[in-house]
Amino acid sequence: MTDFAEKASDLALRVDGELVGKDSLISGMSTLDKACAGQLSFLSNAKYQKQLPNTQAEVVLVTAEFADLVPSSAIVVANPYLAFAKLSQLFDWRASIAPGIAPSAQIDATAEIDPSAQIADGAIIGRLVKVSAHCYIGPNVVIGEGALVGKSTRLEANVTLYPGVSIGKRCIIHSGAVIGADGFGFAHDGQGWVKIAQAGGVSIGDDVEVGANTTIDRGALSDTVIANGVKLDNQIQIAHNVEIGEATAIAGCTAIAGSTRIGSHCTIAGMSGVTGHLEIADGTHITAMTLVSKSIKKSGAYSSGTGVEPHAQWKRNVVRFRQLDELSQRVKNLEKLVKKLAE
Amino acid sequence: MTDFAEKASDLALRVDGELVGKDSLISGMSTLDKACAGQLSFLSNAKYQKQLPNTQAEVVLVTAEFADLVPSSAIVVANPYLAFAKLSQLFDWRASIAPGIAPSAQIDATAEIDPSAQIADGAIIGRLVKVSAHCYIGPNVVIGEGALVGKSTRLEANVTLYPGVSIGKRCIIHSGAVIGADGFGFAHDGQGWVKIAQAGGVSIGDDVEVGANTTIDRGALSDTVIANGVKLDNQIQIAHNVEIGEATAIAGCTAIAGSTRIGSHCTIAGMSGVTGHLEIADGTHITAMTLVSKSIKKSGAYSSGTGVEPHAQWKRNVVRFRQLDELSQRVKNLEKLVKKLAE
Amino acid sequence: MTDFAEKASDLALRVDGELVGKDSLISGMSTLDKACAGQLSFLSNAKYQKQLPNTQAEVVLVTAEFADLVPSSAIVVANPYLAFAKLSQLFDWRASIAPGIAPSAQIDATAEIDPSAQIADGAIIGRLVKVSAHCYIGPNVVIGEGALVGKSTRLEANVTLYPGVSIGKRCIIHSGAVIGADGFGFAHDGQGWVKIAQAGGVSIGDDVEVGANTTIDRGALSDTVIANGVKLDNQIQIAHNVEIGEATAIAGCTAIAGSTRIGSHCTIAGMSGVTGHLEIADGTHITAMTLVSKSIKKSGAYSSGTGVEPHAQWKRNVVRFRQLDELSQRVKNLEKLVKKLAE
Repeated sequence: MTDFAEKASDLALRVDGELVGKDSLISGMSTLDKACAGQLSFLSNAKYQKQLPNTQAEVVLVTAEFADLVPSSAIVVANPYLAFAKLSQLFDWRASIAPGIAPSAQIDATAEIDPSAQIADGAIIGRLVKVSAHCYIGPNVVIGEGALVGKSTRLEANVTLYPGVSIGKRCIIHSGAVIGADGFGFAHDGQGWVKIAQAGGVSIGDDVEVGANTTIDRGALSDTVIANGVKLDNQIQIAHNVEIGEATAIAGCTAIAGSTRIGSHCTIAGMSGVTGHLEIADGTHITAMTLVSKSIKKSGAYSSGTGVEPHAQWKRNVVRFRQLDELSQRVKNLEKLVKKLAE
Repeated sequence: MTDFAEKASDLALRVDGELVGKDSLISGMSTLDKACAGQLSFLSNAKYQKQLPNTQAEVVLVTAEFADLVPSSAIVVANPYLAFAKLSQLFDWRASIAPGIAPSAQIDATAEIDPSAQIADGAIIGRLVKVSAHCYIGPNVVIGEGALVGKSTRLEANVTLYPGVSIGKRCIIHSGAVIGADGFGFAHDGQGWVKIAQAGGVSIGDDVEVGANTTIDRGALSDTVIANGVKLDNQIQIAHNVEIGEATAIAGCTAIAGSTRIGSHCTIAGMSGVTGHLEIADGTHITAMTLVSKSIKKSGAYSSGTGVEPHAQWKRNVVRFRQLDELSQRVKNLEKLVKKLAE
Repeated sequence: MTDFAEKASDLALRVDGELVGKDSLISGMSTLDKACAGQLSFLSNAKYQKQLPNTQAEVVLVTAEFADLVPSSAIVVANPYLAFAKLSQLFDWRASIAPGIAPSAQIDATAEIDPSAQIADGAIIGRLVKVSAHCYIGPNVVIGEGALVGKSTRLEANVTLYPGVSIGKRCIIHSGAVIGADGFGFAHDGQGWVKIAQAGGVSIGDDVEVGANTTIDRGALSDTVIANGVKLDNQIQIAHNVEIGEATAIAGCTAIAGSTRIGSHCTIAGMSGVTGHLEIADGTHITAMTLVSKSIKKSGAYSSGTGVEPHAQWKRNVVRFRQLDELSQRVKNLEKLVKKLAE
């Protein structure tokens, strides 16, 4: 979908690398084993070193120690994976912005749309919304009253921003994401639930990516806050008044309950849950499907759950888990008895 | 986003409270520590009592025992949290309904739209749909053939109702929710899966809230049923023929499998799962990330899973979990041996 | 919603069954206990045999051994459940395709739409898209550049296909599904995350069903692949470069992490997670809310987690789980001591 092509020597310049071997035009990228003529590849994991001698890649990003093993040309860099990430963006599937407003888009007269922005068909933009320079607002996106979209931010098709949401610069919000729906707040009147209006907003920083069908609720009284550089995968649920610190990355299907504060530079693996009103320290790493039900004060890796095992064996162990406290008492009794016997 | 303002004395009347101190105009609300002049706040948790002497709030909802500690005016009520919930709705971000049909909405000629309802841009309403008085149908909402939307119900932007879905009065359905998609029903023919048409519908009562990107499937032969007053958070999955009893509240990312009946007045915390064909008693409470795989006949609190711990320690314990049944046998053997030795 | 009616004798022909008793017109279907005149029912589980004598169903699908117990007419087949599945499709709520393009749909001039396809209101179809014969493209669906939709496939309302997605024949993609969003790929530069462009696509085979709000990410360098006959329930997350084998069925809210290969003819129950870069053997069955964190080489049933129990008891057991490795050591010590004492 991209017609981009550039000389290997120019790619090397972009990543402060040194081209070793002949120069040529690069128009794509692939893994070592699948790359063909005209394509860029990379070696970042020693596990794949054995693929190097036979790769058909036109040019390979490597560290100095592997340069001699590349059968074609090499670009020598300190961190091949990082260099590959940077160069990969040249081959992104996204077309460049085509400024203007599609005829079927509905823009409220009071909205302010920068002329360099692109508003696609079917987008619906409410009162007092501000869309900044070089933004892309995809097909059928809905932006509610008073929302702000920072420079060079992309809202892919079918994104919903509720009123009062603020998004920074260079963000990507994927399709189906819903930002600013009501937090889940109710008071009980003895018979049922009385809704607490959610009067806060959502404030999202710069360089944030939000995955498909992820939901970020508006705050109850103050804002839900996503700091700069946060990366959220698909189908994540961020409840009202959560705060997520800079450059934290969260994998798919994780949920963070209300008012919890996640530190900066954390990683949370998929399908994890963090209960409400907790504080998670900077630099915390949570493994997949972990339930965090108390604050974490010290950075490090944390887990919960049990490992997978054959079902029949698991069933026996699960029964024993229910008796675990009792088993522990029995061991304690045994220790006393044995101590007495030994005396 | 709201221009609402009302005298403190009138707010007191709305919640059967007594205003103590001078009257003044209230135009917002906040927490005790962040409130400023002109704002309403509340004290419902003794933990925050220490914030009371220094609050800048114009008026504070309190019980009688704390009235004297309020530096400004107080509204004395029996249940400040509940009173706050009720008053918060006056400050809701939602604009009042602007009756009429936006020009870009597509309404089938056979649909019946009450003239007091608002149909926003891009909404698409199918054959024989009925939209009742004072409804709000948001931008790009799709309503399938024959669906019914009760009085004063709101469908926020990008909601999808499949054909034959029925929703009661005063409900809020948040963006991205999908109601009435096919239940997951297949028969195996020895080689692959044969689809079972899902001929039932979805029946939702009054005063129900459905969170963003929540999905509620249509029944296979009869309806999936959500009773009055049920509150569903974001990204919940309700499978075909589930029934959920009155005033039950379910937090984000929970899934209820097919044909399970959840009682009334239950609470289910986030990321829990309830397997199919179960019965969960009225007044059951399930903690976060619990898997309920058998019926619960007695109300009370239930849990599964393990608690979070440092990853290195967890790994050792997980290995032991796989040996738990064996460990239990070893303890039993020890007990026998020790008993013999003691004789 | 359906006006379909057919004689019982013709239904019998469709499933190679034998009609026993009088012939009549069948216009609906239901369970044995709820069926009424004119309706088809079935007995596939001995548990429901007791409902047979009193059923009001006009005709009942049964195996030969139960034919005499049917009070009305019977259709005798080898597998009543499978026969019911096949016949149920005659009563599907979906209207037949009405070929043509709705006036408010936006179709790029370079897109190729088969004249037998139906494009509903508000659908937005991009450059070079190909929509095949007898497709249904629902209201407000968005299809990105170059995507392909195979014959007789349905995209229900509000589906999003990103550029470059390919879908086979006779698929059903439910509302809110997002196919082809960027995989979650970043390199760390020491300070934050650098995006890795996701240059692969998504390739979906024939006869695949994708549930509401399910997300399937595009691959990083090569495609994410869903084979023929795969059935995905609602709110499933399929990460980049996952491959799912033929006729595998996955229940709601399960997540499969990047580059994992799931075999064919597997079943994965709801809310399970499979971590990245694993291989899961053909014919593997995973129970609900299981975390699979290592490859499974042998088909069979697998599980993780603990069973539900009353919260107070669970709390004590969870404490003991954290001490499980230590408990195991204590038992080992006891065994040594007791052995010595016994000598």
